[in-house]
Amino acid sequence: MKRFNCTIQNCSFWMRRAIQLASLGEGTVSPNPLVGAVVLDKHGNIVGEGFHSRAGESHAEVGALKQAQHKAQGGTLIVTLEPCCHQGRTAPCTDLILKSGIARVVVGLEDPDLRVSGKGISILREAGIEVVEKILEKEIAYQNRTFLHRNLTGRPWGILKCAISLDGRIGLPNGKSKWISSKESRLKVHKLRSICDAVIIGGGTLRKDDPLLTSRGLARQEPLRVVLTSSLDVPENAQLWDIDVARTLVAFGPQAKQSLVNKLPIGVEKLKLAESKPKELLKELAKKGCNRVLWECGPDLATVALNENCVQELVFFVSPKLLGGLPAMTPFSDFGFNSIDQTFALEKISLSKTGKDFVLNILV
Amino acid sequence: MKRFNCTIQNCSFWMRRAIQLASLGEGTVSPNPLVGAVVLDKHGNIVGEGFHSRAGESHAEVGALKQAQHKAQGGTLIVTLEPCCHQGRTAPCTDLILKSGIARVVVGLEDPDLRVSGKGISILREAGIEVVEKILEKEIAYQNRTFLHRNLTGRPWGILKCAISLDGRIGLPNGKSKWISSKESRLKVHKLRSICDAVIIGGGTLRKDDPLLTSRGLARQEPLRVVLTSSLDVPENAQLWDIDVARTLVAFGPQAKQSLVNKLPIGVEKLKLAESKPKELLKELAKKGCNRVLWECGPDLATVALNENCVQELVFFVSPKLLGGLPAMTPFSDFGFNSIDQTFALEKISLSKTGKDFVLNILV
Repeated sequence: MKRFNCTIQNCSFWMRRAIQLASLGEGTVSPNPLVGAVVLDKHGNIVGEGFHSRAGESHAEVGALKQAQHKAQGGTLIVTLEPCCHQGRTAPCTDLILKSGIARVVVGLEDPDLRVSGKGISILREAGIEVVEKILEKEIAYQNRTFLHRNLTGRPWGILKCAISLDGRIGLPNGKSKWISSKESRLKVHKLRSICDAVIIGGGTLRKDDPLLTSRGLARQEPLRVVLTSSLDVPENAQLWDIDVARTLVAFGPQAKQSLVNKLPIGVEKLKLAESKPKELLKELAKKGCNRVLWECGPDLATVALNENCVQELVFFVSPKLLGGLPAMTPFSDFGFNSIDQTFALEKISLSKTGKDFVLNILV
Repeated sequence: MKRFNCTIQNCSFWMRRAIQLASLGEGTVSPNPLVGAVVLDKHGNIVGEGFHSRAGESHAEVGALKQAQHKAQGGTLIVTLEPCCHQGRTAPCTDLILKSGIARVVVGLEDPDLRVSGKGISILREAGIEVVEKILEKEIAYQNRTFLHRNLTGRPWGILKCAISLDGRIGLPNGKSKWISSKESRLKVHKLRSICDAVIIGGGTLRKDDPLLTSRGLARQEPLRVVLTSSLDVPENAQLWDIDVARTLVAFGPQAKQSLVNKLPIGVEKLKLAESKPKELLKELAKKGCNRVLWECGPDLATVALNENCVQELVFFVSPKLLGGLPAMTPFSDFGFNSIDQTFALEKISLSKTGKDFVLNILV
């Protein structure tokens, strides 16, 4: 019988399948990465598939090897991310791989987690397993951009969402903005929230819009709803205070008056920051395991967030309306640019339509 | 030999060819409509083609019949617009058709010009010619929307051009706007100017930008450059004053001081309006034979122009940049809307790309 020959070509084929499997964990694996795995027997037949479905649950390799059982003997494990070698909430995957009798491991991307970071691969190699590395690395890095970004910067990946008219308005001079975008776009926003770990607004948006900020049940677990407020001037009644619907956190700076902190509703989480700034907030949210956060704030906070590199992706819902209105209700306030050369020039844009609206998805 | 049988299907086929021919006159036929014609001999073979290429020159039917010569005898003339029956700068086309021996005329659209308006068709029918009407009417009406609009409203078709950033800005707080859009978009603007009869700005744009407003030689005749100014506060030196490049017209209201009017450069046309308003200006430009004008003005004039129904089409060049800036530099100023339901909702949008920019073409 022919032995499976691991070429770049067939490695890529199976790695693509592993990437597909990994994507099934979208929205539920945070703070962990998305990981998918395939097991081939020694002849190259597929005998196991697995993906990481939820933090705390078994890793992709475990499921795939379980499915393969004794057929893994002398076979190949294809896995999008380097297998872990540390005892976390689950046992090290390297142990399991060694026990399984797998002869060869194909790894897409090295795990940037300092507890792994090449060590997993070393352990396998030292045990005599053949390791092939860096297969479809770019694709896997893109799939895990939120996890990688948090590991590299200590802050979650930030998405800024914006519903604007063709003439760049987010509301009328009287503050009205319901609804600039279509029903279909609003559903897309709920979907977007469902894959985010937290949704952030400022005190102004809370006072003006009293938003609900949930995925309307699309998420297995609703994202954490966060209010960043320096003044702690928050209304007594607000939809966000109903924590039966979803968790709510109020973040404030060191100057916040204790009397106001005490007034915050029971059950709402309180977070004192070193500074009432987006960067500080994101550091704390990363510690809480957030990989991806959604900014749904007004222009002032959006401007600071962008300036502080707290926005990696923009999602603009552009509605075919003209609003006008001199007292600016535009997505951003002043960046202090003096020439067009200084402005943010965006390169990576994808365009789609939802209802009557255009959706621009932009990497900053 | 089989005689040509004129069905809706083969009429449409040849009418489409006539529409193609008509489009060759784009940019040069104003104030006339675009017209194309095809002549088939009695067997249905094409024996002549023609289009109206320039005001004052021969009509489409003339060229097509000339090409066909005696082969028109007993044949079919397919023409996008009803043949004229009045003596203008050229002889009535109906006379020529009668002389040609054509047996059947297929007309796309009735000419809304009051001197024709069905009379051309009547004359042909009374002379015993079979007339088939209303073939691809909608397509032809769209092709001639500027001509039809002027005939219906007494004002040229208005296009408002705008170069904006993703966040809806047309300039920085310091007024700088060079260049928001790409080189490719600027070339498209030159092309757009080349098919317009006039390009209009306000006094503010003249003072701030000192634009040239030409098609950079793309037009056979450069569009008339128009400044609409109530104050007549215009600079002493400006590119627009060089009338060797293209004609320039300054339009002002009845309150304009004669001393300021006298100060306008020699060679620049002066136009006193009943009111210094877009609507009044367009009425006068229609009288001058303008079918299509391009608004390249600032937000205040754009807002009035839109409010006065002087804009039928928007062309937005959306550049993937973020400009920000609180002192609003947005495409429109206040329309006075109080709810989103009151805002301009646009339906007919086509989208394309030029360089890095998106181009939105919108019928208002």
